[in-house]
Amino acid sequence: RMQNSRSKPCSCPSLKLREVASMYFTMVAAFLVILVVALQGSAPRESDFPYKVPLDPQGLLELSWNVSYPEQAVHFQLLIRELHFGLLFGMSDRGEFENADLAVLWSDGHNSYFGDAWSDAKGQLHMDSQQDYQLLGARRAPEGLYLLFRRAFSTCDPKDYLIEDGTVHLIYGILESPVRSLQAINISALRGGLQRVQLLKPNISIPELPGDTRTMEITAPDVVIPSQETTYWCYVAELPAGFPKHHIVMYEPVVTAGNEALVHHMEVFQCAAEFDSFPRYSGPCDSKMKPDRLNYCRHVLAAWAMGAQAFYYPEEAGLAFGGPGSSRYLRLEIHYHNPLVFKGRRDSSGIRLYYTATLRPYDAGIMELGLVYTPVMAIPPGEDSFILTGYCTDKCTQLALPAAGIRIFASQLHTHLAGRKVVTVLSRDGRERQVVNADGHYSPHFQEIRMLKEVVAVFPGDELITTCTYNTEDRSRATVGGFGILEEMCVNYVHYYPQTQLELCKSTVDPGYLHRYFSLVNRFNDEEICMCPQVSVPQQFYSIPWNTFNRDVLKSLYTFAPISVHCNKSSAVRFPGQWEKQPLPRITERLPEPVPRCPPAPGPQPAAPIPLNLGQLRRD
Amino acid sequence: RMQNSRSKPCSCPSLKLREVASMYFTMVAAFLVILVVALQGSAPRESDFPYKVPLDPQGLLELSWNVSYPEQAVHFQLLIRELHFGLLFGMSDRGEFENADLAVLWSDGHNSYFGDAWSDAKGQLHMDSQQDYQLLGARRAPEGLYLLFRRAFSTCDPKDYLIEDGTVHLIYGILESPVRSLQAINISALRGGLQRVQLLKPNISIPELPGDTRTMEITAPDVVIPSQETTYWCYVAELPAGFPKHHIVMYEPVVTAGNEALVHHMEVFQCAAEFDSFPRYSGPCDSKMKPDRLNYCRHVLAAWAMGAQAFYYPEEAGLAFGGPGSSRYLRLEIHYHNPLVFKGRRDSSGIRLYYTATLRPYDAGIMELGLVYTPVMAIPPGEDSFILTGYCTDKCTQLALPAAGIRIFASQLHTHLAGRKVVTVLSRDGRERQVVNADGHYSPHFQEIRMLKEVVAVFPGDELITTCTYNTEDRSRATVGGFGILEEMCVNYVHYYPQTQLELCKSTVDPGYLHRYFSLVNRFNDEEICMCPQVSVPQQFYSIPWNTFNRDVLKSLYTFAPISVHCNKSSAVRFPGQWEKQPLPRITERLPEPVPRCPPAPGPQPAAPIPLNLGQLRRD
Repeated sequence: RMQNSRSKPCSCPSLKLREVASMYFTMVAAFLVILVVALQGSAPRESDFPYKVPLDPQGLLELSWNVSYPEQAVHFQLLIRELHFGLLFGMSDRGEFENADLAVLWSDGHNSYFGDAWSDAKGQLHMDSQQDYQLLGARRAPEGLYLLFRRAFSTCDPKDYLIEDGTVHLIYGILESPVRSLQAINISALRGGLQRVQLLKPNISIPELPGDTRTMEITAPDVVIPSQETTYWCYVAELPAGFPKHHIVMYEPVVTAGNEALVHHMEVFQCAAEFDSFPRYSGPCDSKMKPDRLNYCRHVLAAWAMGAQAFYYPEEAGLAFGGPGSSRYLRLEIHYHNPLVFKGRRDSSGIRLYYTATLRPYDAGIMELGLVYTPVMAIPPGEDSFILTGYCTDKCTQLALPAAGIRIFASQLHTHLAGRKVVTVLSRDGRERQVVNADGHYSPHFQEIRMLKEVVAVFPGDELITTCTYNTEDRSRATVGGFGILEEMCVNYVHYYPQTQLELCKSTVDPGYLHRYFSLVNRFNDEEICMCPQVSVPQQFYSIPWNTFNRDVLKSLYTFAPISVHCNKSSAVRFPGQWEKQPLPRITERLPEPVPRCPPAPGPQPAAPIPLNLGQLRRD
Repeated sequence: RMQNSRSKPCSCPSLKLREVASMYFTMVAAFLVILVVALQGSAPRESDFPYKVPLDPQGLLELSWNVSYPEQAVHFQLLIRELHFGLLFGMSDRGEFENADLAVLWSDGHNSYFGDAWSDAKGQLHMDSQQDYQLLGARRAPEGLYLLFRRAFSTCDPKDYLIEDGTVHLIYGILESPVRSLQAINISALRGGLQRVQLLKPNISIPELPGDTRTMEITAPDVVIPSQETTYWCYVAELPAGFPKHHIVMYEPVVTAGNEALVHHMEVFQCAAEFDSFPRYSGPCDSKMKPDRLNYCRHVLAAWAMGAQAFYYPEEAGLAFGGPGSSRYLRLEIHYHNPLVFKGRRDSSGIRLYYTATLRPYDAGIMELGLVYTPVMAIPPGEDSFILTGYCTDKCTQLALPAAGIRIFASQLHTHLAGRKVVTVLSRDGRERQVVNADGHYSPHFQEIRMLKEVVAVFPGDELITTCTYNTEDRSRATVGGFGILEEMCVNYVHYYPQTQLELCKSTVDPGYLHRYFSLVNRFNDEEICMCPQVSVPQQFYSIPWNTFNRDVLKSLYTFAPISVHCNKSSAVRFPGQWEKQPLPRITERLPEPVPRCPPAPGPQPAAPIPLNLGQLRRD
């Protein structure tokens, strides 16, 4: 007979299995029977799982999900088109199979099992002591097997992944032969991969579209997807001549059927108004044949990434396009991700814009927050999480924002390849008030425009502080700020209304203080390195011997030295004022770290006082 | 009859109840009823709770406890000699009543209640959602009310205190009038206080004493305890003329009955052998009448603090005293803590030494680890936790330790008033291997010699790294290293055998690098401060403007700059060798942070796989 292994064995005579075994097991078991039965034959409605993404490049695994904020849980529906001997599905910090939190379905050839597991730093699987992927049902259908399960955002089990806002790295693996046990699964031998999604989609009510809404598809017709893993495809589209000013109120992806797993992300850029015309082009963005002038098509109109849905502007605002002073030319960029190197696939994907001639009260604007693109902001090599911060200061918002403030409703985070986290915080009177947007699992390969859960109101005098965390463990020399893919950026493009003249509110360390740092490094260390002032800033960074002292002092410099603020109407035109050697914004009160809400434990001790009989108490 | 409080009570007779009602609440309720009843009238044996300490200066509250390492729990017995309307007992980081973890017994005048509570940062009490002080029983006796309760070391409830090795700050408060509810208790109006104890006493088997063991009491006869809060009393004792070498094998406190709550700690020091005689003295240590020569009585022979028990040397070793080359004079120092300013109390407390003429195989020795007493190691003002580290390097242990190594069996941590944490770690080949002794709630007011849980073997080439954390939030200028009470130390006196010539293995930052730091501060900051080399190191530290950069760079300096090592036979005589500008020991692998073991939750989800019926799986 089974003993309950959790409580100290009592030598009491006749305990029946069910009486001893914890109540929960029974409950879950009962549940399962009910649900598996209930779901045989009856499909959940499509609308139950509004978000959908293919997990693998062939689209054999398809994940749909919904988010319940009241329950603080995600419900998953996983369609397995070809079930072999099981499947791993889960989450990990950056998509690795080690230290991952996994739901596992496996078969020993006779029976199938489902369980919540975790993998250790070596990739060995273990059954989790707390089962937090709760199986709700399984259903066979003509297209495959559906698994339904539920996972709380936070389980308070240290082995579990904490589902947070921002990017989540989903991983999957397919079991192609039977396994004796969960522990016998060899992760390194699996066919698997990762897929990035924003799991916790915001719960936003969709504004009604105007009656005169029209649509325009910006699609690249009949592209033959190159048979290589990564292609950025560029296509130039043109608005009709004399197209007047409209408001874009919504846009959505148009993905050619069958290519859902290949079209990774798409962006529509407006070209610069300075040029009367742009050449037509449809080809890879890195081709020698691409006209140079397309480099002037960089103003984002719309952006979509896998797993994202339609993007709606708030009902008071729309994105202006057309009309005098704006270019008729648009550039569509599509990132095809084709790791299985399919040949000859044809595609006509793109973005469908919904626009209206009945202009809404406000034009929406895009403002760039974070760090100036300059080599004075640099990251030493070999850092696992080096932090750089860019400031939009009170002085700039005081000057540039209207008294009624602006409303930020969406945000697109941007770094180059070393970026690992990005966060923008709103501070007022030195006190952090609100997170504008945060991604603790940010990936430079997944840069969506995200609707914010809550619209953020920013008033004159507020500060917007953008912090990026970088990993340079694989690099042997310093990474400086700049435009190159191996240089770095720290940017948050915030989408807001009403539009103001402020296009760019960023900062960089005062170059004079950086110079003092270089001479300090030169004097303090015994090495004799030429750090002559005629040498460029990147060259000076490249010649620093990176010991702990030089690293630490650079960190201290960046958190201490005054800043140069770019408070600009456009990338070249500053607002009038003194913007050099500005003091760093002081933060006297930080936002509290969010404490994860744990699911109620099934049988905790009661929180009620326990009555005691102590007799009459006396007063001395 | 009484239940054995060490094992979970088995409530077999009430099993039917459990079968019907839902789990834990019923279980706890049943427990309580059984135990409260069972304990009426039958006293637990003294030996069940081997450790005892008065909580308040009058001794009205007396705490006894035992530690169960298999259960990872402490069992408490609290004797309340005069129960008014209840009592708070608990633990907090440093003895404060805010953010404390409390067991509360309260009465509304009619009924009494017991509950696990916590206080927030403002001192407001809240019932804890998880009840981790488990009441095991209550018993009226002629001397007062006994409460028995149990607490796991770690509860994994973030509101709870984690019971760790080292000092625990116990707090108590007495409810002098009835209260409506737990929440109505006003902590600031309570009569209460704190008591420091080492709660997790090591579980050491007591070595047998030799047959010829004799005892000697070093007591200060008939002291009238001064009617002031704090007195350090000094008393000179003398060994008989011609007293040959003996081994002290054990010592224990002798506390005059009735003064248990006043005698805070006692130490016996041996005087320096250089002097033939020392004057007799019995009086306050800070009196002008105290002969200066007593300052040469600083070699610790024995030390005891409230709550400590007898101290046993390991059976292979004893502490040499008597014989040629050692002084006949001893100084006893007693710290009387008399906050209620009792007048005319007489005391003859002291320490009873157990010694043998049959010398054991090894002499025990005392070695000083940590930082050299020098102002070059300094702490900026206004720091909440500034860290300084002293190194005993591989080069020194290579030279000074025997090939068979030494065994450290006890340790006494020492800092001055700013000390908050002390830890010594053993490192071998750059990898941290073992904690020698750690106190995360260290108080300079509670410096016991503590037996180690595990004897630590140290071999030639090992490194002993001692790290102290300081709080200088109440100070306006830098705190430099030194002998003064407002200067700081970072020391671990380790007790070991076999004795070696190595008395002192400590370090300090290289003074040349500190000089570079001063000139860097001078150049980097815009302030013009004279930091001329003719000015003393403390004066230079006092004139630094303490901005974040200067603080950070000082931290970086201390974790980067080479060190000067004191590898000494005595405080003045170094081992031969080059000890200046030594590299900092490199640590490539840290000890993992201990993961608290949580008590098994009463009804968690089962870790077993859940069988599913999916039909026959196919192989493609």
